[in-house]
Amino acid sequence: MENKPISVLLIDCPDEKGLVHKITGVLYHNDFNVIENEEFVDSDLNHFFMRTEFQGEVPKHLLNVLHGILPPEARIDLRSKNKKDIVLLVTKEHHCLGDLLVRHHYNELNARILAVIGNYDHLRALTEKFDIPYHFLSHENRTREEHEGEVLNLTQSYKPDYVVLAKYMRVLSPTFVTAFPQRIINIHHSFLPAFIGANPYKQAFDRGVKIIGATAHFVSEELDQGPIISQDVIRVSHYQSAVEMAKAGRDVEKIVLAQSLKLVFEDRVFVSGNKTVIL
Amino acid sequence: MENKPISVLLIDCPDEKGLVHKITGVLYHNDFNVIENEEFVDSDLNHFFMRTEFQGEVPKHLLNVLHGILPPEARIDLRSKNKKDIVLLVTKEHHCLGDLLVRHHYNELNARILAVIGNYDHLRALTEKFDIPYHFLSHENRTREEHEGEVLNLTQSYKPDYVVLAKYMRVLSPTFVTAFPQRIINIHHSFLPAFIGANPYKQAFDRGVKIIGATAHFVSEELDQGPIISQDVIRVSHYQSAVEMAKAGRDVEKIVLAQSLKLVFEDRVFVSGNKTVIL
Amino acid sequence: MENKPISVLLIDCPDEKGLVHKITGVLYHNDFNVIENEEFVDSDLNHFFMRTEFQGEVPKHLLNVLHGILPPEARIDLRSKNKKDIVLLVTKEHHCLGDLLVRHHYNELNARILAVIGNYDHLRALTEKFDIPYHFLSHENRTREEHEGEVLNLTQSYKPDYVVLAKYMRVLSPTFVTAFPQRIINIHHSFLPAFIGANPYKQAFDRGVKIIGATAHFVSEELDQGPIISQDVIRVSHYQSAVEMAKAGRDVEKIVLAQSLKLVFEDRVFVSGNKTVIL
Amino acid sequence: MENKPISVLLIDCPDEKGLVHKITGVLYHNDFNVIENEEFVDSDLNHFFMRTEFQGEVPKHLLNVLHGILPPEARIDLRSKNKKDIVLLVTKEHHCLGDLLVRHHYNELNARILAVIGNYDHLRALTEKFDIPYHFLSHENRTREEHEGEVLNLTQSYKPDYVVLAKYMRVLSPTFVTAFPQRIINIHHSFLPAFIGANPYKQAFDRGVKIIGATAHFVSEELDQGPIISQDVIRVSHYQSAVEMAKAGRDVEKIVLAQSLKLVFEDRVFVSGNKTVIL
Repeated sequence: MENKPISVLLIDCPDEKGLVHKITGVLYHNDFNVIENEEFVDSDLNHFFMRTEFQGEVPKHLLNVLHGILPPEARIDLRSKNKKDIVLLVTKEHHCLGDLLVRHHYNELNARILAVIGNYDHLRALTEKFDIPYHFLSHENRTREEHEGEVLNLTQSYKPDYVVLAKYMRVLSPTFVTAFPQRIINIHHSFLPAFIGANPYKQAFDRGVKIIGATAHFVSEELDQGPIISQDVIRVSHYQSAVEMAKAGRDVEKIVLAQSLKLVFEDRVFVSGNKTVIL
Repeated sequence: MENKPISVLLIDCPDEKGLVHKITGVLYHNDFNVIENEEFVDSDLNHFFMRTEFQGEVPKHLLNVLHGILPPEARIDLRSKNKKDIVLLVTKEHHCLGDLLVRHHYNELNARILAVIGNYDHLRALTEKFDIPYHFLSHENRTREEHEGEVLNLTQSYKPDYVVLAKYMRVLSPTFVTAFPQRIINIHHSFLPAFIGANPYKQAFDRGVKIIGATAHFVSEELDQGPIISQDVIRVSHYQSAVEMAKAGRDVEKIVLAQSLKLVFEDRVFVSGNKTVIL
Repeated sequence: MENKPISVLLIDCPDEKGLVHKITGVLYHNDFNVIENEEFVDSDLNHFFMRTEFQGEVPKHLLNVLHGILPPEARIDLRSKNKKDIVLLVTKEHHCLGDLLVRHHYNELNARILAVIGNYDHLRALTEKFDIPYHFLSHENRTREEHEGEVLNLTQSYKPDYVVLAKYMRVLSPTFVTAFPQRIINIHHSFLPAFIGANPYKQAFDRGVKIIGATAHFVSEELDQGPIISQDVIRVSHYQSAVEMAKAGRDVEKIVLAQSLKLVFEDRVFVSGNKTVIL
Repeated sequence: MENKPISVLLIDCPDEKGLVHKITGVLYHNDFNVIENEEFVDSDLNHFFMRTEFQGEVPKHLLNVLHGILPPEARIDLRSKNKKDIVLLVTKEHHCLGDLLVRHHYNELNARILAVIGNYDHLRALTEKFDIPYHFLSHENRTREEHEGEVLNLTQSYKPDYVVLAKYMRVLSPTFVTAFPQRIINIHHSFLPAFIGANPYKQAFDRGVKIIGATAHFVSEELDQGPIISQDVIRVSHYQSAVEMAKAGRDVEKIVLAQSLKLVFEDRVFVSGNKTVIL
């Protein structure tokens, strides 16, 4: 039994009565071994979400059967619980990259890091210690469009499931974002929506806040406005300078990013409007 | 529709395939309007838990129908979502009592406080400000058994759904505990299982911990060992004396107790072995 | 010795070498019994802050001696550690008021609540249970200026040390604010600077944040921009509606407000630019 | 000025009046440029602690001058703010080691990792990626005394300032502990004093706690009883198995260990009885 593959069934559709009964009926009559099942109704949007993890072979006709009993707008996704393929984009800061490389090396990331792309060459040595390809694509002497085009082409050449911005300090254009809809994850170095934009620790210091945080979110076309996946905070005080706040914040950033990737790569994160539903 | 009563269906039984499908089938075919539904399988104990909140009349035969499709050991509980009746036991400290009285006064407790019983008379004035009966049952000049017998008799005379120990500083005997199985809730002034027993803040101070906490739990026959419902913590430092830690801890205690009562009174807390499952 | 009064000496001035040595010299040679002493230099502003708590009689000439050794811009404040006189302003919500009234009743607030002023009459009964005067000053049928003028006059008639906005839902004009410089404390129902202004819980819900918070701050002329005294947060999830977030947030609000008042009333909070230094 | 070395002066002695005045007098009259100064009196033990960070040359006679004005029992330590030399002891788990190696590689640890010693060979590859010597000293086919003797000899050969147990899963004997008094730092995988000893996550799971944590402490002769330096916690729920709790706990462990090392290596941690004072 332990050798059987594990699959995840993801359903979302407009809510109506009896959905759970009908869907679990299909699973029950096909003799599925359900490991974990959770459903949620967003009552604002009147929308239904369900995630079911089960063990065993997936009959080919299952998706047709499910489409037959669900509303026509239903999205049904059946995923084998394999590792995701990801590409990391970085700039100069190493803390998130280092954390992800160690987790990846020990097979704890539920993902294969196909490559790391940096707009500086600073993080090559760290990346190559772990035998991951590193590509340096400088933004110097290029227009913003030219540089982003190169990064996009290289990223797409890897056909990743997800793109992870592990402290990539350049704003992505709508062209890039729409190439990976709800598949780009960013770690923002503040407790969003506070301190949008540049230098959030300096902003936090100037405002004299007593708590700072970090936010992992899907990237949408509007800066720092995409659906939030995970957030965490730590206490700070007047004893800390803006630089020391930034240092302390890095520990939060790397843990929040790793936690959000765990949720996404386990197929637990639905996007509902501009929010996430995590099952 | 808004005027229809709200009911909560609680089911727990040994796990087997198809339970969710069968139960939701009964609800679906009886045309129930499900507001919220959550299920959980304790895979250690192979035990199934389900909580369904729905709007509308409950057909009389529903329990029989459900028993017919569930394993014979199943516990099925159908509750109208009314306020619980509770009795509070107190000693001298006012912070939990004051917090609960204000919430109760503004109809935020999901409960009716029938009476407050104290082994001192200190909290009479506060209680009576809110027009709640206060009974003073001194433990002086009585054996432990005599005193507890009086408290038990008076408590039982109110026929409460739950007994809340809002900083009641006396240990209850098995006789008392078994009179209200899984229906006595205590707030313990430490992050259990650290600092069991008396003077936990002094213990925490002496041990030099950097974080202190509070724990709300069901009372079982063994001291401070019952199923934990809710916990929270705050940071402390060497600047704080044991007395100051106790003061800071009181804020945590009152919030943790109120949060655990909210969960219990909304019928969200199952006991599974010596743990709680909160749906 | 225990009967001797406790005093607090507060000093802030431009920083220069030897300040601690000089000031502690005055205390030492006057044979003061220092209980607690803390100093801090804001290196951005090059400004020195010091708070010393000591037991015993205060020689009359002490302030002159101190002024003689400190830079001419120095502010020196010698306070006997008495209770502060405060007036509370409220609207309809009871949770902060209830919490403060219970603490005050048990002598835990380091303050005397002289009166509660509400722009609704909702909280009269609660206030009068604790034998505190309640004044209802309706804003209806009055201009904003007229109403605020009445509130200001009544507040000033009590000559309070501090004005506490315990969920007072009206914006104060610069006229009111400048009447009590750095002496008005507000509890804002969000983790500032996120969600400034109205309906922050609805804003937080719409943004899908995973953590919400509350902020106690001094009121300055610009809305929600005054120096932050204290903040705290709790986790929320997609399971909670905006209304449920607001309910959960109230517990944070009342604890954060009470904690900030404790700091202010113990004379621990200096304002440094638009930030606080807490010693 | 920026090029001048930074020094830290650490003083602790029985408390008496005028200590701050006398010590700051020495610093003032020697024209020291104080960057940061903090003092604390443990009123239980009537003991004084002071940490002063300053820029500039240290006159040779300073210690004599200070001894002349302080009680005879005073401990005075003048440290140049250099990196500490450390040796890491590990077993099989990589998360703390990986985190420390990345910080060390980027010069963020305030320490030089001289070597890593493991009782398994599992972590050699990770360590050697960062060009740090790895020594495998198996405990197999050796008595406990023999093995510990080898580890002690090898550790001592490096003359480290501190020994860091980065998930070293063997209990140290008093012989080892007394060789490095208050210089061995351990990360314990629970919120001490809860769940002392083996398998704390299993213990936490069995007890059904709602919060788990990690504790960094100095190692004393009694197991898990040394002075606590730093602690942190995270929320868990009935959804998590003991294995998943352990996974989540690892993120807390590595951050708590790194934070405690930062405090220790900046010479901010005094031991006071069985507690720490952190200045």
